[in-house]
Amino acid sequence: MAKFMDVHEGFVGVTAEQLAAAHEADLAIEGEEGVHFERAWLDPESGKVFCLSTGPSKEAVMRVHEKAGHPTTEVYELPIEV
Amino acid sequence: MAKFMDVHEGFVGVTAEQLAAAHEADLAIEGEEGVHFERAWLDPESGKVFCLSTGPSKEAVMRVHEKAGHPTTEVYELPIEV
Repeated sequence: MAKFMDVHEGFVGVTAEQLAAAHEADLAIEGEEGVHFERAWLDPESGKVFCLSTGPSKEAVMRVHEKAGHPTTEVYELPIEV
Repeated sequence: MAKFMDVHEGFVGVTAEQLAAAHEADLAIEGEEGVHFERAWLDPESGKVFCLSTGPSKEAVMRVHEKAGHPTTEVYELPIEV
């Protein structure tokens, strides 16, 4: 299992409820890909979302987000953390 | 206190020890600005670093990183998380 950060753009003005709904959509299907989305942080001013996850590959993370309706291609594997 | 994610580029090939040293440099001076860097994640392949912090403002976060020798202007305030 590896750790990943993915980044979304365009979430300007999104509310806490809307972010929670998007996160729930990931959680509902993530098991199919062996992924788990641990946390998501939103800056509603810039529209950036950062999602921290664990899973087998970047592609698996991307597939969950795509199936959940919020695709991104910006995914980074994070082998090092402090 | 607000929460922030900042992003650095150019850390290609950086090691765990080097990331820890950079993080320690932040921790050593962050108190001057009322900032605390909670966590940093590195993708040594792309060179991206993501730092999660709390503090009074984006500018305070930027000042700590600049004084510690690894400036960035890419800082996002994160009022919403799940």
